[in-house]
Amino acid sequence: MFESAETDHVIDKETYEAAEPKLRQALLEAQYRLKEQGRFPVLLLINGVEGAGKGETVKLLSEWMDPRLIQVESFLEPSEDERLRPPAWRYWQHLPPKGRIGIFFGNWYSQMLHARVEKRIKSADLEEAIGEAGRLERMLSDEGAVILKFWFHLSKKQLKQRLKTLKDDPLHSWRISPLDWQQSRTYDKFVQHGEHVMRRTSRDYAPWYIVPGYDEHYRSLMVGNILLEALTAALDNDTRTPRSSHAAPLPPNLDGRGVLSSLDMSQTLSKEAYREQLIAEQARLSLLVRDKRFKRHALVAVFEGNDAAGKGSTIRRVTGALDPRQYRVIPIAAPTEEERAQPYLWRFWRHIPKLGGFTVFDRSWYGRVLVERVEGFASEADWLRAYSEINDFEEQLTDAGIVLVKFWLAIDSDTQFKRFKEREETPFKRFKITEEDWRNRDKWDQYSAAVEDMVARNSTEIAPWTLVEANDKRFARVKVLRTINDALEAAYARD
Amino acid sequence: MFESAETDHVIDKETYEAAEPKLRQALLEAQYRLKEQGRFPVLLLINGVEGAGKGETVKLLSEWMDPRLIQVESFLEPSEDERLRPPAWRYWQHLPPKGRIGIFFGNWYSQMLHARVEKRIKSADLEEAIGEAGRLERMLSDEGAVILKFWFHLSKKQLKQRLKTLKDDPLHSWRISPLDWQQSRTYDKFVQHGEHVMRRTSRDYAPWYIVPGYDEHYRSLMVGNILLEALTAALDNDTRTPRSSHAAPLPPNLDGRGVLSSLDMSQTLSKEAYREQLIAEQARLSLLVRDKRFKRHALVAVFEGNDAAGKGSTIRRVTGALDPRQYRVIPIAAPTEEERAQPYLWRFWRHIPKLGGFTVFDRSWYGRVLVERVEGFASEADWLRAYSEINDFEEQLTDAGIVLVKFWLAIDSDTQFKRFKEREETPFKRFKITEEDWRNRDKWDQYSAAVEDMVARNSTEIAPWTLVEANDKRFARVKVLRTINDALEAAYARD
Repeated sequence: MFESAETDHVIDKETYEAAEPKLRQALLEAQYRLKEQGRFPVLLLINGVEGAGKGETVKLLSEWMDPRLIQVESFLEPSEDERLRPPAWRYWQHLPPKGRIGIFFGNWYSQMLHARVEKRIKSADLEEAIGEAGRLERMLSDEGAVILKFWFHLSKKQLKQRLKTLKDDPLHSWRISPLDWQQSRTYDKFVQHGEHVMRRTSRDYAPWYIVPGYDEHYRSLMVGNILLEALTAALDNDTRTPRSSHAAPLPPNLDGRGVLSSLDMSQTLSKEAYREQLIAEQARLSLLVRDKRFKRHALVAVFEGNDAAGKGSTIRRVTGALDPRQYRVIPIAAPTEEERAQPYLWRFWRHIPKLGGFTVFDRSWYGRVLVERVEGFASEADWLRAYSEINDFEEQLTDAGIVLVKFWLAIDSDTQFKRFKEREETPFKRFKITEEDWRNRDKWDQYSAAVEDMVARNSTEIAPWTLVEANDKRFARVKVLRTINDALEAAYARD
Repeated sequence: MFESAETDHVIDKETYEAAEPKLRQALLEAQYRLKEQGRFPVLLLINGVEGAGKGETVKLLSEWMDPRLIQVESFLEPSEDERLRPPAWRYWQHLPPKGRIGIFFGNWYSQMLHARVEKRIKSADLEEAIGEAGRLERMLSDEGAVILKFWFHLSKKQLKQRLKTLKDDPLHSWRISPLDWQQSRTYDKFVQHGEHVMRRTSRDYAPWYIVPGYDEHYRSLMVGNILLEALTAALDNDTRTPRSSHAAPLPPNLDGRGVLSSLDMSQTLSKEAYREQLIAEQARLSLLVRDKRFKRHALVAVFEGNDAAGKGSTIRRVTGALDPRQYRVIPIAAPTEEERAQPYLWRFWRHIPKLGGFTVFDRSWYGRVLVERVEGFASEADWLRAYSEINDFEEQLTDAGIVLVKFWLAIDSDTQFKRFKEREETPFKRFKITEEDWRNRDKWDQYSAAVEDMVARNSTEIAPWTLVEANDKRFARVKVLRTINDALEAAYARD
């Protein structure tokens, strides 16, 4: 979830200064249209780690736009008036009316997160608070509100650097002082609980956006662009019924950087090192799967990747170590008639292994947010809601003890070109390459954007995505096997 | 919630036999249209107390319709295959495909309820299960499924009678045996947890229907009619987007009976008894409100009722006992401009009292499901979702310690006619009667139906509706005061 935000997103001063006046003008215009239409309110929820620019960004938005049409609410310690009423009362008192933008800086998420980090509430209370937040946001969205939730993020390293220079800010996180943040335990717990809360509460109509907080230019343009896009879409769509509306925009990629571009694609493994490590990891997997602790778990491995990235041959190296009765490989192609008559996830649920089983999905439920999104096989509403449905689905798997590993095998465009050519020229490989593969290549950037969004929304603590540098097949195969083995060992250690 | 189901709903044999062939024919036709369109599946969840006719009704539905197009699934003890997989796996395996009807007899609700009644899970686990059920049903509904949830109900007295004659039924509730049901504690806990679960999970797109289980004819026609209406609406609406669809039908009133018709409207109080009891209850209220325990609570009293039922004068008798600084009366009329710019509940939230406070709402948030529904001021989608939003809202109030009492002041049509005439003829009362009042009288039956639905969906354990027989104003006033006092005492006793 935080992978992309933790890569070094930077926008230089020149680019920023060229973009800022246009964005500002567009936001101002949208704001006046919002006021004029008076059809719906906009609510921004601001959360995240200390020092990641929450306060600065909120101030900037107020400067960019007409401050008379923005209500910034900073919910600090409740007043006596507030403490004597139901907890939600204070938020209701400050909801922006139709035609206005409200920025809730400190909100129900800050409350529940701080309370949980400080152990004032238990995990069950947190679930209760999550449920309440969900019902409130659903209701607001049904009433027409556009809701955008921002998590300003810093990696632990970035935070440490930032804390050194951090000045006192009246809009600071009120519960956890900069002193507390010095402790790396505070960061870990805050981010861990934050991840859980975001996984549970990110919905198509009110998604979370992880904002990389380190670079001021990047975070400002990112938040501004998301707000502008959401506003414009809602303003243009004046026939919308509240409920069918507001599939909020996806985050923009402003600097072309992301998890894919930050991979070191030059990594290789020599033949000897490969042979040695492959055998070692295969032996390790074989032992781990025969371990009696495996009976309390199961293993599900998902393989996605660029065409010709080597999914098939990698899967064979994984299963190569095992007895055929120990695993099943499920190739996912177009759904059958029977499968089309069922909800989307049905065709994957049917192949979920029993405890003690191992299933490899050669392509998977991520098709919906990859190929179906890019090729238009699914409607936008359908693939947008799939992100949270997939998180719900995977949580059910891991709750049941299943160890879930997900691999994106990444190659660069040149490597793909070479492999396609080679396939065309090698008679026994020709069946592996079709016109369609060449067509898909034209959509390289769209697929890359889809991968970035998928990782941002579906790489979770319970089921992280592993991006595999696969220009060198040997390197990729060993990395995959090692990741599986590490995940199994970690699960056994937690038992 | 159970009030209407516990009144004696009966349909005689003749009426039943006249209605049944038509219903059957219509259901069969709808079933074939469902198959032919193949656009969506239908899922019926069957729950409720023992002996209330769950099994019989399911069998009957299979007889009425083409059994080849219905899948009846009885989820008993999980098989080994099922136990070794995530709990939801078994349901996914048996989901009806598009074009089919699935009846889940024993389902996620039975699981969580039985587990909670037997204390195998805690209250926090129940909340977790409720959240999961909500996400699953939301997803199924987004995928197009029509979901109808039935709770077959018997009052404790009806159950006792039924148990005497209950034969062994293979479709019986599998966890709790008829022997267990003999214990009135089992009934109480099952119904109490059931009420909580239904309150949390009843949504416009997947509502709960409480089926009075005692009379075979009534329950059969009720379930058949709801299924038919839901099917027809979904089949006719072929332009629907899944998400904006499936506001499920309201329950039909088949015998004209209900909570209103079962009131004994002839109840009166003599002048002397009234004077005595009024003074006693007013004194009691005055003491209860000055009690130091009141500081941990607050009181919210909602008054709704037929026009000319005496809301105003009753409210004056309630507040008459108190110092004006101790209470506020909020008359609810058409929303102001400021209020129209906010979500519907905003204008009520703003008047919620602090702990230690007492607020009377003279008309209330129930306007949405009463006057706004009947007069068409709110869209159907809006008032249909209001039932669950109101339950969420009221739960937040009672969670914060607020004691919430809700009164429907009921008079019969003749009494209203007499009072209207009297108002017209009495110069100082003439301002109280308008053309609109006469027009509303023409909609008497629609208002009555709206009251029945409101009580069925919003009379909850935490915030029950009290129906007040108000043909005799003296009787009504004393009943209202006594109910308030009892509610406060009960809250203090729970502290």
